[in-house]
Amino acid sequence: MDRSQVTGEPQIGEPATELDFAPPAQEDCACKEGMFPRASRRQFLRNGSLLTAAAAILPARAALAAEASSAASGALDPSWSVPGRLAKSDYGERAPFEKVMRLATIGGTSSLTPLQAGVGIITPSGLHFERHHNGIPAIDPRDHRLIIHGMVDRPMKYSVEDLKRFPSISRTIFIECSGNSNAASRSASQKTAQEAHGLTSTSEWTGVRLSTLMAQVGVKDGAAWVLAEGADGAMLSRSVPIDKIMDDAFVAYAQNGEAVRPENGYPMRLILPGWEGNINIKWLRRLKIGDKPFMTREETSKYSDLITLTGKARQFTWVMEAKSLITFPSGDMRLPGKGFYEISGLAWSGRAPIERVEITTDGGKSWNLASLQEPVLPKAHVRFRFPWTWDGSEAVIESRATDQTGYVQPTKSFLTRTEGVGPTYHYNGIQSWKISPDGSVTNVLNG
Amino acid sequence: MDRSQVTGEPQIGEPATELDFAPPAQEDCACKEGMFPRASRRQFLRNGSLLTAAAAILPARAALAAEASSAASGALDPSWSVPGRLAKSDYGERAPFEKVMRLATIGGTSSLTPLQAGVGIITPSGLHFERHHNGIPAIDPRDHRLIIHGMVDRPMKYSVEDLKRFPSISRTIFIECSGNSNAASRSASQKTAQEAHGLTSTSEWTGVRLSTLMAQVGVKDGAAWVLAEGADGAMLSRSVPIDKIMDDAFVAYAQNGEAVRPENGYPMRLILPGWEGNINIKWLRRLKIGDKPFMTREETSKYSDLITLTGKARQFTWVMEAKSLITFPSGDMRLPGKGFYEISGLAWSGRAPIERVEITTDGGKSWNLASLQEPVLPKAHVRFRFPWTWDGSEAVIESRATDQTGYVQPTKSFLTRTEGVGPTYHYNGIQSWKISPDGSVTNVLNG
Repeated sequence: MDRSQVTGEPQIGEPATELDFAPPAQEDCACKEGMFPRASRRQFLRNGSLLTAAAAILPARAALAAEASSAASGALDPSWSVPGRLAKSDYGERAPFEKVMRLATIGGTSSLTPLQAGVGIITPSGLHFERHHNGIPAIDPRDHRLIIHGMVDRPMKYSVEDLKRFPSISRTIFIECSGNSNAASRSASQKTAQEAHGLTSTSEWTGVRLSTLMAQVGVKDGAAWVLAEGADGAMLSRSVPIDKIMDDAFVAYAQNGEAVRPENGYPMRLILPGWEGNINIKWLRRLKIGDKPFMTREETSKYSDLITLTGKARQFTWVMEAKSLITFPSGDMRLPGKGFYEISGLAWSGRAPIERVEITTDGGKSWNLASLQEPVLPKAHVRFRFPWTWDGSEAVIESRATDQTGYVQPTKSFLTRTEGVGPTYHYNGIQSWKISPDGSVTNVLNG
Repeated sequence: MDRSQVTGEPQIGEPATELDFAPPAQEDCACKEGMFPRASRRQFLRNGSLLTAAAAILPARAALAAEASSAASGALDPSWSVPGRLAKSDYGERAPFEKVMRLATIGGTSSLTPLQAGVGIITPSGLHFERHHNGIPAIDPRDHRLIIHGMVDRPMKYSVEDLKRFPSISRTIFIECSGNSNAASRSASQKTAQEAHGLTSTSEWTGVRLSTLMAQVGVKDGAAWVLAEGADGAMLSRSVPIDKIMDDAFVAYAQNGEAVRPENGYPMRLILPGWEGNINIKWLRRLKIGDKPFMTREETSKYSDLITLTGKARQFTWVMEAKSLITFPSGDMRLPGKGFYEISGLAWSGRAPIERVEITTDGGKSWNLASLQEPVLPKAHVRFRFPWTWDGSEAVIESRATDQTGYVQPTKSFLTRTEGVGPTYHYNGIQSWKISPDGSVTNVLNG
């Protein structure tokens, strides 16, 4: 983080001069809620009548502040300010200039997180990826119940308010669709990080441990599996081993400090930390305890992993293995010129905490350690950062994650050799981005 | 978190019976986006024609799923589901049933976070408290620049895009207005946690360290203070010692994974971790380096702490000392009856990490340790939890935070004895809530 990471004398930003302290154009501000058209600003700077115009529009309090500020800090100081609006502030919204969006896939059954625009580790709830098998049900929480039955002493049902009565936990957890990066396993045709890998997101989830609820209902001897079922039109259901249920599973009623969002399972969602998204059942309405897997559609015809090399399918592949992705710079961006850039991205593993992330800027010839944002949370996205000075020539950049089990994120060619072309689920091969001399960044295959 | 914390046999939730597996009323769902009126549901349960009605409305895919599910798990299983809508999902919104809101203060110069509805540690960006001195400026980020000048070798200006080029950091940080809990220092007239203490919130902030920018501009010998100034109509400005600037200060352009929200300083905000909200200058447009404090209005006539006992004012009281608050149960709630409750709340300190939080449920006669949500982040809200079985009699509950310096959150009576009645800023006395035998929770003074 020290200056040595930023090459040369100031090359980011511009020298400041007296003119920079001039106000932006003020003519139109009152009637446009304080927004300054760029053309108008330039025009204003040209005509140079700074003080007159500024004095004319400043509200009384601001004028006083300007006077005080000017007296304290000298004539070169800016004398302009941006008149405010008093916002209706019940529930804030982002600035109208911000246009970062989820991207719907064909058919509208999922939408992708704009990973290339992300920073830190929290995904804004409005940008958390979504995947639904029959649309998003609009559930009135007053009518919703979670039923727990099957091999239990006391079948029970719980409202959202009931769940909030129990001891609670909060954990920052990534959820990744097992079909994430599916197309990336076959080609480099998807342009952006969002298009290629956007089915993964991280939130702080809050809810009640399933071990707490299981103690309430009394699990019978011989119980080994739990059917989890959603209240959506698809009644999506999966079988979960009871060991996972008793280990770290919980039923979440909140996401990032407020109610779970509708597309993420409102009013309650099963969270199985580190396991594929599909089994984190949304709109959870039922848990049935049994002694064998329930063999639902979503774990037989779907969500089993066809290994094309052998023609056989793997079943019950729940854990999302270590994976990483450079989000800046990434596909469809254009670097403005050679010089300093901070390479940044996300790493995650459903099995164990991330141990390290390595970066190559020469297509894999050499690798260097990235720094990891602290604290490194288990089963959450981890932000990595790596200082890089681009010399303006073609470069291929990649990241490679290793988790605390020693598992190393594989290359695409390794996966192709061992599993065949294009696994349908759980693809976690290394992603390559090429930076061309003109600064354009593209998705490429590299070994 | 084990069952021993939940007293007695299942007393939360209801026993589940065959009837519970019936669908909610389906008659109106197609024309109401899948929402089920409660009255209609009850009526439906009365007439009991479950399978017929359900089969009539289930979409084809859901019917198949129902068949599969029914075959796998037996006749008692629910056969209903909630038809989905395909949402427009560019940027998600919360469920329409969720009505938790910020609360504007008189005059609209601030609005308060609904702490009593919060869980975990992240405050949703839409509910982060706000305080503005001349409204919220609508700034076009393309026109905005941060100017750094004064005692520097190279005066510079930076756009938002420039700032994003530098090495970045993300930190989860609380910001608390120094005027928070002002009224609570004088009386118990404010009903809720939000009304009494809602000017504090926590976000994951991302930006560039000021030490990085200061290395770029070259700070001259003798520099000791930095004037930080906002671009709002009030041109709010404060003086910051350069030691703090070089220690852990940063300029944030992002909050919870997306652009800083307009009411929190879009497009860039000064973050001084642990220091009073006012000095975390929003809409930051200028840093002027000097050799003495600039003595701005907001640190002379305002934001100095009048100690009523002596009639003197403290100046430059930046650090927010250790404080805590029970958010559940809290004022204006009503407990449904005796039994198990998880007492939960927030603790924070601007000086050092929280070491412990103690809870009393007998008005201060005895204290017990609460558990702290891991990881405990320095200068961030810390969620604490404490299992409690309410016996139905009157109880006064309080929390008391201690940070790693050994500082213990004081009682109101201690503050009154040492400082007088009603300090205007930096009030951090212990908050008491009384639970009456009818379950109602009220704000009370207790010593």
